[in-house]
Amino acid sequence: MPDKNLRIRRAGPAEPRRRPVMLAIAGDSAAGKTTLTRGLVEALGPERCVSLCTDDYHRYDRAERKELPFTALHPECNYLEIMEQHLQLLATGAPILKPVYDHATGELVRPELVEPAPVVIVEGLFPLHSKLARACFDVTVYLDPPEEIRREWKIARDTGKRGYSTEAVLAELERREEESALYVRPQRSHADLVVRFAPIESRDDPADTPLSATVMMRPTIDHPDLTGALRPGLTRAMHLKLERDPDGRPVESLHVHGYVPREESLAVEKEIWTSLGEPDGETPDCLGRIGEARSEPLAIAQLLLLYHLRDLGRGVAA
Amino acid sequence: MPDKNLRIRRAGPAEPRRRPVMLAIAGDSAAGKTTLTRGLVEALGPERCVSLCTDDYHRYDRAERKELPFTALHPECNYLEIMEQHLQLLATGAPILKPVYDHATGELVRPELVEPAPVVIVEGLFPLHSKLARACFDVTVYLDPPEEIRREWKIARDTGKRGYSTEAVLAELERREEESALYVRPQRSHADLVVRFAPIESRDDPADTPLSATVMMRPTIDHPDLTGALRPGLTRAMHLKLERDPDGRPVESLHVHGYVPREESLAVEKEIWTSLGEPDGETPDCLGRIGEARSEPLAIAQLLLLYHLRDLGRGVAA
Repeated sequence: MPDKNLRIRRAGPAEPRRRPVMLAIAGDSAAGKTTLTRGLVEALGPERCVSLCTDDYHRYDRAERKELPFTALHPECNYLEIMEQHLQLLATGAPILKPVYDHATGELVRPELVEPAPVVIVEGLFPLHSKLARACFDVTVYLDPPEEIRREWKIARDTGKRGYSTEAVLAELERREEESALYVRPQRSHADLVVRFAPIESRDDPADTPLSATVMMRPTIDHPDLTGALRPGLTRAMHLKLERDPDGRPVESLHVHGYVPREESLAVEKEIWTSLGEPDGETPDCLGRIGEARSEPLAIAQLLLLYHLRDLGRGVAA
Repeated sequence: MPDKNLRIRRAGPAEPRRRPVMLAIAGDSAAGKTTLTRGLVEALGPERCVSLCTDDYHRYDRAERKELPFTALHPECNYLEIMEQHLQLLATGAPILKPVYDHATGELVRPELVEPAPVVIVEGLFPLHSKLARACFDVTVYLDPPEEIRREWKIARDTGKRGYSTEAVLAELERREEESALYVRPQRSHADLVVRFAPIESRDDPADTPLSATVMMRPTIDHPDLTGALRPGLTRAMHLKLERDPDGRPVESLHVHGYVPREESLAVEKEIWTSLGEPDGETPDCLGRIGEARSEPLAIAQLLLLYHLRDLGRGVAA
């Protein structure tokens, strides 16, 4: 028997640094990015997912911004080159020391370490701003609610959680409008998925009807096969349509209806959840949650994103 | 004459991203890193030089460290992987968003953008800690004062600028001793230059005699030709010796004597400054400065480092 100590030690093949699946959720202020993200992060759990917000890359704090001729929506108001650098590092599996903007106080505070989990979700105003930033993502989403709905959401949030008056929020929206049009909204055309929560215009549903969702799927990436979830009996809650994007390009649109009875939506959710191969048949409670309320179209949009992440196959348990 | 508008526009050759000259100044707490660095930064000016301190990579603030079983000198107490990443970025000419540790309050605060100037000086406890970090530098220096002198310096600084009592500083030195020996001092063996400010042991100079300097130059990099500065008439202020490092390896040592009359030191300084090709014959005032006092051996050590940076030739005006 050969002496083990005499054997030449050979290094095994190097284990490649694991690259995470990167998901971008872009959109204007109060477009629903954090709400969409929160459900995904909870459903995946901290072992499988980490999220970060690109608002943290603000170059100036709130007091400094008051003296400036532009708003937080201006690229100059953000360290976008550093954001790009950090996205590249995360996409290649490296940790970053991320700046932190405290929305409660408007101050830039102590940075924090972010180590890439199998899934990294990046939400914010600018994740799709540049080609180098976009190249870091496997799936990109733009949230595109009608402006009047986003305005309501922004007023509700900023007067509630951030201590502003309604007048101040409206003035800020007005001040930001030009920069939103110039720098934030153009990202819509770079997203693989454009998600819009809105009432259905052709219907006259009562005011408390949940918003419907339209998930526009561009042929820029492969989309999951929804055959199971679209079988007869479930199509009232959700159906696919070939459409033309307002920008003229052909897209496939998934329409998720807010007005159908809840049990029909739940059946669709269960169908998608099961096809995700999750051992537990119950769709997690965290999906569709908006504060204390629930939105089945939101839950379905989140399930579709989970489906996408699963299909990308790296690191997300099947 | 051809229509200029019809000519095909050709992109010129891409301008390569300019890599800065990177200088590391490592050493234990109060070894004189900041004093040495300050003179270099001022002499080069903000257009040509930026400096940063790796203490900013502390993982915990002062209050948190009190609860920990190790001190700031433990690698676990610092984001050394992030420090490495940032050194690599700077060395390749990229900007970083550097964390900031406020020594006055002991808090970790808002990070700041650092864009590489032609010369980047990195001082701190750990710049030579790992091979990847060391590889980022063109010249590496370790400051190695005798322990009893460093102790005096630390008491003077920490009771003065940082508001500690002498007892607290002595207790902290005691608490740090093991980790200093384990993690900080081993960097000495990786430095191209080891600089030691100390009285000359064989002499019995009066207590107010300026400290002499020994600059140990390892054959790990090319060192400047000091023929001019070492010509007859100047050798009392400074001379070269072939020696054996306490670790056994052969080195060349430059001895700069604190006891010689000031005009002899100034003649050496002028000689080096002139050979640096600076248009103005006057050696800048910022060299040799220690608070309100002046040290000619410090000025000479700083001039030698400027000589090194000049010899590296990239970005530093000749």
